Parts: sequence; structure tokens; C-alpha cells
Amino acid sequence: MDTSKFPTQESHATPYLLFDHAKMERNILKMADVARENGVALRPHVKTHKIPSIAREQVEAGAAGITVAKVSEAEVMADGGMEDIFIAYPLVTEAKIRRAVQLGERVARLVVGVDSLEGARRLSAVAGDSTLEVRLEVDTGLRRTGVLYDGAVGLAEEIEGMRNLDLTGIYTYRGAVLGGSKTLELEEAGLEEGRLMVSLADQMRERSIGVDEVSVGSTPTAEYVAKVDGVTEIRPGTYVFYDRMQARLGACSLDECAAVVVCTVVSRPARDLVIIDGGSKTFATDVGPGAEPLNLEGYGHVVGYPGAVLERLTEEHGMLSVDEDCDLEVGDTLQIIPNHICSTVNLHDEVYIVGEDGAVEETWVAARGKVR
Amino acid sequence: MDTSKFPTQESHATPYLLFDHAKMERNILKMADVARENGVALRPHVKTHKIPSIAREQVEAGAAGITVAKVSEAEVMADGGMEDIFIAYPLVTEAKIRRAVQLGERVARLVVGVDSLEGARRLSAVAGDSTLEVRLEVDTGLRRTGVLYDGAVGLAEEIEGMRNLDLTGIYTYRGAVLGGSKTLELEEAGLEEGRLMVSLADQMRERSIGVDEVSVGSTPTAEYVAKVDGVTEIRPGTYVFYDRMQARLGACSLDECAAVVVCTVVSRPARDLVIIDGGSKTFATDVGPGAEPLNLEGYGHVVGYPGAVLERLTEEHGMLSVDEDCDLEVGDTLQIIPNHICSTVNLHDEVYIVGEDGAVEETWVAARGKVR
Repeated sequence: MDTSKFPTQESHATPYLLFDHAKMERNILKMADVARENGVALRPHVKTHKIPSIAREQVEAGAAGITVAKVSEAEVMADGGMEDIFIAYPLVTEAKIRRAVQLGERVARLVVGVDSLEGARRLSAVAGDSTLEVRLEVDTGLRRTGVLYDGAVGLAEEIEGMRNLDLTGIYTYRGAVLGGSKTLELEEAGLEEGRLMVSLADQMRERSIGVDEVSVGSTPTAEYVAKVDGVTEIRPGTYVFYDRMQARLGACSLDECAAVVVCTVVSRPARDLVIIDGGSKTFATDVGPGAEPLNLEGYGHVVGYPGAVLERLTEEHGMLSVDEDCDLEVGDTLQIIPNHICSTVNLHDEVYIVGEDGAVEETWVAARGKVR
Repeated sequence: MDTSKFPTQESHATPYLLFDHAKMERNILKMADVARENGVALRPHVKTHKIPSIAREQVEAGAAGITVAKVSEAEVMADGGMEDIFIAYPLVTEAKIRRAVQLGERVARLVVGVDSLEGARRLSAVAGDSTLEVRLEVDTGLRRTGVLYDGAVGLAEEIEGMRNLDLTGIYTYRGAVLGGSKTLELEEAGLEEGRLMVSLADQMRERSIGVDEVSVGSTPTAEYVAKVDGVTEIRPGTYVFYDRMQARLGACSLDECAAVVVCTVVSRPARDLVIIDGGSKTFATDVGPGAEPLNLEGYGHVVGYPGAVLERLTEEHGMLSVDEDCDLEVGDTLQIIPNHICSTVNLHDEVYIVGEDGAVEETWVAARGKVR
């Protein structure tokens, strides 16, 4: 990132998140091309940025709609002009289902996830006179939400018969962890994910269950899973910025990462120790140092200082171990690519976006904190 | 916590943070007593709750003032009526120092941390016609901010001679980690922390440096360090709620923990697996499972389900491993005491406080996201 374009200390106090708009745009177009070339729909997960204006850029570049994890995220995105929203999460309480039904009345299309018989019954009971479009979530090995693979056909049959529900597809989130951390393994993981889901859709269709859509994929596997015949949609999220984890997985280069945290050196108490003004309230810690299979060193990549490791974080302090001859001094500014951008964005109320002309725009992270 | 008092699903969608006001009040009074009995001032660190009304309760119970980590936190607390604020953080950029100077003009007392010669020069240069009250931060082993112990007297002498600065005390943050994880070791750690700092203050006074205040302590060490002759102030933060980490350290019982995250079971895909609607955007991950020396199992204590372990988190999913005969079903509500409450509060825009009468109040976390 060209540091001459940075918001200055005068106008922008650190720590802050900075997005490089040109890089972001390239990432958005690249994934749109992956979808177009493979004849699948792109429905990016906007939990990564939580910003309606970025969702609009994704749709303008060709996305068919968006994916969210929460009703509250969906509401913010609808307020921001999104008209085709998939809540890829099982809604199981009356209040949330009611909010989803109401939201469905003011957007062109709303789809809701379901993964259990009890969940489906609740959707059906609350939907009332409305018809809720639903997709069945299937577990393909992550052991998160999703009906177990072997029970998917049976559950789909039961949902198919429920009033107020219109089952139109199946979906899964598998990520890259199952496939290991090398590029070749990402390809294998993506192809396997696609085949598992297409095979399941075929079994359902043999039983006359109307499954139009097979929705799969994440940032590291999207380009591979999109090639599988029968896949109709991919749902990557992180690709809009990429991050250090994705670079380690082989999904991007560090140079493609469009988001950095800008911090200031506040202390250098010893030659081998530099303290910055960003800690665990600035950098997410859900992808920490040493965690398998990524085994990352530190909490982020320190741009321009290959010897510096962001070794420890407390709430508002970041501790970098540095070589003794490292020239960092009190007041210096550093850019750090976070390990995991999605959960890092979630810590910030506002972010800065720098354009190709160097102009910097402050943007509110409208869906931050929308966990309900 | 008495579940009959809980906000219901109808009115309060999960996940949310719930504070038990009666427990919180007992914790606030307990620490105020520790300070009173030992003749030291209590200046709680409000980064734990980030809520002005709770800071006011602490002051009403006897706190002399408050501690914050950031200028922006100080500004929010001043807006909320706080009149005696210590920014325990080195401010090194012109914009932030200027904001601190301006804030100092509208509260009764503002104190700023300093830990380097360069930092002190910057404070002195920007202060202009004002006089900034400063405290020197000393590293007592944590290797975070703070001048190295052996360099503290020399730096204090230099600061003492600078215009616009009034050095009135020294402070440290040492925590409990250096002392291990058992009660006896907490006592040893606290006593050592106090003696180190008092000895340093004595050395400074021998050189005619005016050090009135020796400010020390954290939640697990406060009751011990307060006993050391010469200590004038303690700065615990977490005690207002306590958390699972503090219980493990021996600073409280789990029953004294005044904050729980309330979640809903959204899926039970297998007998040994329960999925809740709180993940790493709901529970902080900075104190994760297995990290030494705490070695906690999972990301929180699941109240009432001793066999359930919150083993994995993704952004909006929490994965509990449970016994096969566990009775949790889709739609059930769970209370979980988080490992680290300070960074967990920081994820939530609003929280609920339940009173002894069962009335529930929604409160905005006014200083959330104030990292600058």
C-alpha cells in the first residue's frame, strides 16, 4: 500500500482500519469473474465488511444477491438497498422468524436457512399466511450447523411437505481447514465439497424434492468448487479484502490484501520490544499465533518489517518483538495485515477507505455488533 | 443467576450480555472496602464495562476517580460526569495530546501516563500554556509499556525538569500471570509488586523528585498489594463483574461473576454436539482454551451444564461438546460466563442489566469501540 496516500496523524488518530479501494475493487471483480466463467451465481457473505456500500459494489460487479448470518445484518443490508438476501443461519425463535417474515415483505427475495425438523416446524408455524423460501443446510464435515449428511434427504422430504415453507435449495459451509493448507489441497477440498452437495441434490431430485440450488464455497475453495457440474452458487466472503490467513492458505498473495490496521508506536522500552496502540480490542484474536493448521507467527503481518512479530496482545497494547537494530521509534506509524479480517472489522465502528486519487473517506460499519 | 428474572426471548433476542445488578453492586462494594480498610485510593479501570452509569456507581461507592486506556474513553466518561480521570497510557501524537489538554480544561483532574523521554518531550511540547499532570509508567515484569525498572529513576529526573509537566506519581500494571495461578501466589505477586514500586518511589524521593502517588494493582492482586506500606492507589478493573479467568486465578468464585452471555440453542445436529447463536463476535477469544497458565477448557463456563464445553467458535456459531444424554434442545436458552469479560463487553453495543426486582434495563456501551 502506498503510504503517501495514508490519512495523516493530524486528521486520523490511530489505531484504525484502512481499506485500499483499488485492491478491493480488483478482488471484487476477480471473484465475479470466477462466478461468470463457471456459470454460477455469486452471493458474497457480507459479514466480512458489514458495510452496505461495499455490498452494493459487489452487486454492481455481478453478484446475484448477498449472504448474511443474522436477521439484524439482513435488516441493515435491506436498509442499504439490498433486494436479494440469504440469511444462512437457522432461525429458531419466534421473534426472529417474525422479523424475517416482515423483512421478506420489503425486499424482492429473502431466503432463510434451516437445518433441523424442529427448526423447520418453527419456521412453518410462525410464517402464518406468508411463504418462506428456505434452503436446507448440510454438514459436510465442519461439525457446525447443518443436518448430518446422511440425514439430509430424509429431512428435506419432511420440509417439502410443510405448509408455508418453500424448499428451493441446499447449502453448506465447509471452509478450507478440512483440506489442509496448500493450494493443491484447496483444489481437492473444493472439488470434494461440490461433488458431495451435487450428489445429495441428485438424490433429493430422485425423490421429487424440488432442489434448484446447490450453494457452496468459501474464499479459499470458491474457484475450485465453482467448476463442479451442478453447483449453482458460491458464497465467499473474505475475498473482498483477503487477509493473512487467506494468504497462508494460498487463496491470495499478501499484496492483494486490501485491509490493514494502522497503528502508532507508543513505546520502545527495550531494543527488542516495540509497543503499538492496537491490542485485542483492535485486532481479532480468533486466529491466533500457532493455531493449527495455519501456524501463523503473531497476530498480523507487519508490512515492511519482516523481522517484527506481533507476539502478544492485551486489550489496548500490541507487543512486537523486533531485531535490536530495527529503526522503529515512538510516534512511527505501522501497517499490519490482520490474521482474520472479518472478526477484525467487527471491532471497529468506522473505517477509512482510500481511493486511487488518494482521497480518504470515512465509512460507518453499519452492521457491526449486529449479532442477533 | 435466577433464570426467572431473565429477559424473555419475546422481548430480547439472543445473544446478549446480561449483568446481575445485585452481584455487581456486591463486587463494587467489596473492592471499595479493600481500599478503605487499607487506606488507599481506589481508581477502577473502566475499560471493563465502558459504561458511564457503572463508573458513577463505583465513584458513589467510594472510588476516588477512574482509570481509562484511551483519550476517547476519557471523553465518553467525562461526558458521563466523571471528574477525576487517569489516562493510563502513553499519549505520543499531537492530536491526542491536544485532546487530552482540552479534556483537562473541563474536568476537575486529568492525569496522563508517560513512559519514555520522547513521549515526555511530546507532552511538554504540546501542552502549551497548560500544565499536564503526569505519572510515570514502570515495567515490573510484564514487558508491555513502562520504562524498564532500572531506568525509571533517571527518566523521572528528566521529566521533573520539563516545563508544562507536573510529575506526581508512578504506576505499573503487572497482573497476576507473573505470580502463577494459585491464591498464595497471587498474594506473593501482589506484595512483590507493591514493594518494587514503593522502593522505586523512595529512591526518587531521595533525589527530591516529587512522587506522591504509587498506583498499582489489578483485580487478582489488589487486595494484597493494597496492604503494602507506601502504596497509595489501586486500579483493578475486572472485579466489577469478575469472569471465568478471575475465578480460575482464585480472585472470586464463579457465583460472584455478575455477567453472563445468554445464547439460544439453534441446532443439535448430533447427540454430542450443540450449536448456539454466539461465536467469536459474541465471546472474546483473547483468553482461549488451553492457554497457559490458566489452561481453561473452552471459551466460557456453561452455567448448569457441567458436562458441556464451548469447544469451538466461528463468527456467529458456538460449538458445545455435550454428553449424549444432555437434554439441550433447539430453542433452549443457555447462560455462559465468558473467559474474559472486558474484551467480551467490547463486542456488544448494548447490554441488559437485571435488578433485584427483576426489572431489566437496556444500557448502551457508550465507550465501546473507543480505541483511539
